[in-house]
Amino acid sequence: MTKEDRDRILSFLGNYGPLDSAKKYVGSDRAGYSITPGAGDQVGVFSKPVDLHTLLDENFWAGMLFEETFDMQATMFQCRGGNDKIPYAFAAKLGDVIQYNAPVKEIRKAGRGVHIVYTQAGTQKSIDADFCFCNMPLTTLKTVPNDFSPSHKKVIDESTYASAYKVAWEARRFWEQDYNLYGGLSFLAQGCSPIWYPSAKLFSERGVLVAGYQYNELGTPFGSMTLDGKFAESRAAIERIHPGHGKELEKPVYIGWIHAPYALGSWVRTYGKTAEDNKPNYETIITPDGPFYFIGCHTSHIVAWMEGAALSAHRAIAQLNDKVKSAGLARQSNRMQRA
Amino acid sequence: MTKEDRDRILSFLGNYGPLDSAKKYVGSDRAGYSITPGAGDQVGVFSKPVDLHTLLDENFWAGMLFEETFDMQATMFQCRGGNDKIPYAFAAKLGDVIQYNAPVKEIRKAGRGVHIVYTQAGTQKSIDADFCFCNMPLTTLKTVPNDFSPSHKKVIDESTYASAYKVAWEARRFWEQDYNLYGGLSFLAQGCSPIWYPSAKLFSERGVLVAGYQYNELGTPFGSMTLDGKFAESRAAIERIHPGHGKELEKPVYIGWIHAPYALGSWVRTYGKTAEDNKPNYETIITPDGPFYFIGCHTSHIVAWMEGAALSAHRAIAQLNDKVKSAGLARQSNRMQRA
Repeated sequence: MTKEDRDRILSFLGNYGPLDSAKKYVGSDRAGYSITPGAGDQVGVFSKPVDLHTLLDENFWAGMLFEETFDMQATMFQCRGGNDKIPYAFAAKLGDVIQYNAPVKEIRKAGRGVHIVYTQAGTQKSIDADFCFCNMPLTTLKTVPNDFSPSHKKVIDESTYASAYKVAWEARRFWEQDYNLYGGLSFLAQGCSPIWYPSAKLFSERGVLVAGYQYNELGTPFGSMTLDGKFAESRAAIERIHPGHGKELEKPVYIGWIHAPYALGSWVRTYGKTAEDNKPNYETIITPDGPFYFIGCHTSHIVAWMEGAALSAHRAIAQLNDKVKSAGLARQSNRMQRA
Repeated sequence: MTKEDRDRILSFLGNYGPLDSAKKYVGSDRAGYSITPGAGDQVGVFSKPVDLHTLLDENFWAGMLFEETFDMQATMFQCRGGNDKIPYAFAAKLGDVIQYNAPVKEIRKAGRGVHIVYTQAGTQKSIDADFCFCNMPLTTLKTVPNDFSPSHKKVIDESTYASAYKVAWEARRFWEQDYNLYGGLSFLAQGCSPIWYPSAKLFSERGVLVAGYQYNELGTPFGSMTLDGKFAESRAAIERIHPGHGKELEKPVYIGWIHAPYALGSWVRTYGKTAEDNKPNYETIITPDGPFYFIGCHTSHIVAWMEGAALSAHRAIAQLNDKVKSAGLARQSNRMQRA
C-alpha cells in the first residue's frame, strides 16, 4: 500500500464507520435513531451501537447482505395485480393455440418429427409435429413414457428438485402501522423464515404476510407436520419476531410445490446423481434431442426465475431457426448442384 | 478480541468480501456481472474487481453511502401525480379559509393579540386575531415590518438560507431503455451533479431527468451563468456520464430558489452570524414571541423536508393548546377562589 492509499483508507474508514473525531464509532444516522429528529427541541439521538460480538454473528450478515445479491435487490418490479398476469396475458394473445386440461401421456419420436399423446375430457388425442418445445419440469417429465435418447433420459431420471414451501396469512398491516416496515424481509435464526412483508398496496388496511419460505421441506421436521402444525409453527415465528401479533394472523395458506400437480417440486436442484454428473448432465439437457428442445428455467443459469424460462425459450427458438435455415440452405445447395 | 470473535471476523470477511477459498476477492454477484447468467451455456461472468486505489476514492464512497443516509433511503414514498398534491389536498379541505394573492405587509402586536396587514387585488386589508402561526421563511419574514421582540428579530435578520437549484430536462428514457437504470442517482465529481433518474412512470416512453441539484449556487461560477449557460453546463454533465445522450435532452427547466418570490432561498443554513450564535438563535425562534408561533421546517431538526414543517405545526398547536388550557384552568381557579 502506498502512503497515499494508507491515508485514503483511514479517511474511508472515517466516512464509512462513521467515526467521530476521536476515531470512535458512537452511532450514525445510517444505523438509525432511538429518538428521531423532530420539531423544536426534539434533537435526534442515535441508536446505541451494536456491540462487536453481535455484529459478527453470521446469521446477522447473511440477512444484511441478502438484498445485495444480484437477483434479490430492493428495487424489483412486479405486475400490478400479481405476476400471474403474465401467463394470463400470454393466454389471451395465444387464444385456442393452448389446449387446457390436456395432460400429456406419451412423448414419442415419429419419423423425423414428434407424436404427442394426451387426454382431454376423457378422450385420448394426439398431435404430430415437426418439432416440440418441451417445458415440462423434469419431475413430471420423468413420469411420462417417452422416446428420449438414453443420455437425455438419464438427466431427466437423475435430476432432483427442491421442495420449497411458503406459508402466507392475511392480517391487519401491523408491520406498517405499528413498526414502519414497508416491504422487505425479516430473517429468523429458527423456525419459519423469512418473514416477507408485502411490497404492493402499501398503506392499505390489510395485507398478505409470508411467514416461512424455505427451499427444502422434504425430510425436515416441518415437512412431516400436519397442515395445522405447519400453521402453528408459522404463527409462532411471527409471534417471536413481532410479539403480540401472532393472534392477528388469519386465513392461512400453505403452498408446498412438491404437492402441486405437474410441478412436483419447486425448481431443479441437481441434474445428476453426483457432483461430477451435474455439469455434463446440464450440458445434455440444454442440447436438443432430435426434434425435442428442452426449455424452462432448468435449462438456464437463472433457475427458479421466470427470466430463466423466458431466455431458454428465446434460445431454443433461435436454435430451431438456425437449424431450419441451414436445412433450407442445404436443400437449395442440393438443388443448385443438381441443376 | 476473544478467540471466538477473531474466528467470527475472519468468517465475516469471507462472507462480506466475499472471498474465495484462497481468501482472495475475485468479484461477486453483489458487484455485478460483465456477462449476466443466461439460458443454456451462457454462464455468468463477474465484473472485474475494482482496484483498491479506485475503491478508496472519497467521492466514490460519498455516492455509495448516500442512500444509507437516514433521509435518503431507496424506499421512499411519493404522491401519485407529484408531491404538490399535498398542498392542493389541504387547499381543497380548507376552502375559503385560505386567502390567495395576499402578500403580508405588516405584522403587528395589538393588545394581547395580533394585527396583520396585507394587500389583495390592490386593496389594503387586515386581520386581527388572538394568535398567529407564522410559517413564512425567514428570508421573506425579514422584509416585512414587524413588532417581534428584539431577540426574535435578531434571529430573523441574521439567519441565512441555502441557494439550492435544480435543472431538469425532458427526454426519452435512455437511462432505462439503454442502461437499465430505474430511479436513483449518479454522482459526478465535477459540474452539475447529481443526475436524478425519475422514480415514477417507470417504463413509459419519456421522462424528466434532473441534471444538477446543488445546495448553494450563490457565489459559484454556475450561479453567475446566464440561463443558457446553465443549461449548457447541465447538458454537458449528462454528456460526460452518458456519452451521446446530451443531444436527447429537451425543454429544460431551471429552478433557483433564491429567485422564487416569497421563498428567496431553499432552506435555512444558519440561524446566526457565528457558529456560537446558531444554537441560542435556534432556541429563540422555536419559542413563541407572545402571540406569534413560528412554524416551518426552519423550526425543526428536519430542515428542507415537509416532515419538519408538519411536525413543527403539530408542536405549535400543542403549545397553544396547553397555553389556552392552563389559562382556562387559571380563570377557573380564580373563580373558585372568589366563590
